[in-house]
Amino acid sequence: MKKTPFYLVSLLWIVLLSCSKEVKQETQQAEQVIDPLPSWNDTPLKKAIIAYVNNVTDFSHKDFIPVEDRIATFDNDGTLWSEKPLVQELYSLYRVEKLLTIHPEWKNKQPFKAVAEKDKAYFEKGGTKTLVELVLATHTGITQDEFEASVKDFYATVKYPGATGGIKSITYQPQKELMDYLRNNGFKVYICTGGTLDFVRGISMELYGVPKEQVIASSVKYKFDDSLLMREPELDVYNDKEMKPVSIHRVIGKKPVFACGNEGGAGDIAMLKYSQASDYPSFQLLVNHNDSIREFYYQEKDSASLKAAAQYQWNVLSMKDDWKVVYVK
Amino acid sequence: MKKTPFYLVSLLWIVLLSCSKEVKQETQQAEQVIDPLPSWNDTPLKKAIIAYVNNVTDFSHKDFIPVEDRIATFDNDGTLWSEKPLVQELYSLYRVEKLLTIHPEWKNKQPFKAVAEKDKAYFEKGGTKTLVELVLATHTGITQDEFEASVKDFYATVKYPGATGGIKSITYQPQKELMDYLRNNGFKVYICTGGTLDFVRGISMELYGVPKEQVIASSVKYKFDDSLLMREPELDVYNDKEMKPVSIHRVIGKKPVFACGNEGGAGDIAMLKYSQASDYPSFQLLVNHNDSIREFYYQEKDSASLKAAAQYQWNVLSMKDDWKVVYVK
Repeated sequence: MKKTPFYLVSLLWIVLLSCSKEVKQETQQAEQVIDPLPSWNDTPLKKAIIAYVNNVTDFSHKDFIPVEDRIATFDNDGTLWSEKPLVQELYSLYRVEKLLTIHPEWKNKQPFKAVAEKDKAYFEKGGTKTLVELVLATHTGITQDEFEASVKDFYATVKYPGATGGIKSITYQPQKELMDYLRNNGFKVYICTGGTLDFVRGISMELYGVPKEQVIASSVKYKFDDSLLMREPELDVYNDKEMKPVSIHRVIGKKPVFACGNEGGAGDIAMLKYSQASDYPSFQLLVNHNDSIREFYYQEKDSASLKAAAQYQWNVLSMKDDWKVVYVK
Repeated sequence: MKKTPFYLVSLLWIVLLSCSKEVKQETQQAEQVIDPLPSWNDTPLKKAIIAYVNNVTDFSHKDFIPVEDRIATFDNDGTLWSEKPLVQELYSLYRVEKLLTIHPEWKNKQPFKAVAEKDKAYFEKGGTKTLVELVLATHTGITQDEFEASVKDFYATVKYPGATGGIKSITYQPQKELMDYLRNNGFKVYICTGGTLDFVRGISMELYGVPKEQVIASSVKYKFDDSLLMREPELDVYNDKEMKPVSIHRVIGKKPVFACGNEGGAGDIAMLKYSQASDYPSFQLLVNHNDSIREFYYQEKDSASLKAAAQYQWNVLSMKDDWKVVYVK
């Protein structure tokens, strides 16, 4: 048999090599599809999530949702990372310390006094009002650029009580997988949090792959003054409860078809109800903090969130049973 | 010479065919690159825009901007479509008519009375205050879903004074090309308008390819009530002048590197200044309404916008000279 010309052999090699590369990539993708949520136990909840995503992304299925309407919203505190204590609270304390070194005389005025004297009762008695007072006192009166630099420094240095790693180590690994899984299926993933806008934006991409413009949050007032954005000592939006649907509408203009919140402060009931009002098939997920060993055990006194979940047939996520691991390693 | 085996010939054909397909696509792309702005005259402004885009998208150039920071913001009224009269004003009149058929007794109360009696002086004397009064009276007190249906009907039926086609025929063809050109170069294009949020969102994709979540606008207050979003008769944000940078920060969290507004009401000076404060090389563009033949001729009494453009070295777009055609055909 005559020898095949060299150029033809080379061409064949090129074709075969590029084919094998593609096959390899496809195999890897197929392997990923087998378990998109490896840190989730193989419970009915996991099956329900996967079935929902399969159906709404299948063009021939009656539940199909066009890609531009695949909107997912996640609460942050207690839903994507631990909230005992709130990270934002730690930032406020960090700021109090910084501010007291510049203005030592402030130790005699509230809320600095309460922090300096470790007067927990002051905040417990005052509730949301004193928390807002603390946030305004520590998050405003500076330019937006100064604030961003301060948040960056905080995240790089913060020690979370009981955690051994950096801030990453209190984020939930299964939720990161869930967000990736949704994104891989064409969903646009937003954070919708009671935390403040620029504080969460300062870490949202690094921790969750969520860009700044996909963070919906509480916010102070801003003032544009001679090319500078100033942070004013006044609350503009407190993004909790009934404000969450309003903020979601203002930022996105569409109802989320996938919404995930947590029980603890009844803060996500309205968001989940709003999602359920979508014209599309939707999925509501409520994180239940029932894992005293690996995370925390805390329940609302009136069980408002769990009762709403039962009433409206939302999916309840048992941290204890549905998650193989809790934290990112 | 021996015949080359059939399978090798087939393989070669496959390779050659797929190559020729790619070459064809590349040629088409190259042709597009030759003139991305065909409705713009070949003036220094057009050259400046193209040079800017070339530089900031060239990885090896000192002006390179990473794709995630290529943010562009465009005003709408007078920047993307004509504003004599404001389309939003036409919608208000359309709503007055609808409301008066349901509540004929309202013809005796303001602002319905002034509209019913064609009392232009009422609005001219009252200025922004009466305009806001008219918007609140006609844009609120209904659910968000009802409002969206009404806006859809309006856009489908509106006749713009002097225009022969539908609403599309008062949008500027060169601006559509500019937005496409920016998008093709990795820019995320936002609208930042004094018009109201859901009114502009109702047409932003169809006219400009801008999705709902990329519309930054004035807004009424909303209330979430039993799964329904209600439109409350109160203004929340009047997105003009110094509020534009604030709203841009709230929605995007980054400074735009490309900002385009128009002279007429001095409404875009702050947005252009904010863009110029970016750490990246930025581009400011101010539309000058100096084309009395093809569009309108109007100038601010104090020339505030043009003076700012001169002071800060912004690019001024002469409708008369820089545009080959004005409107979309």
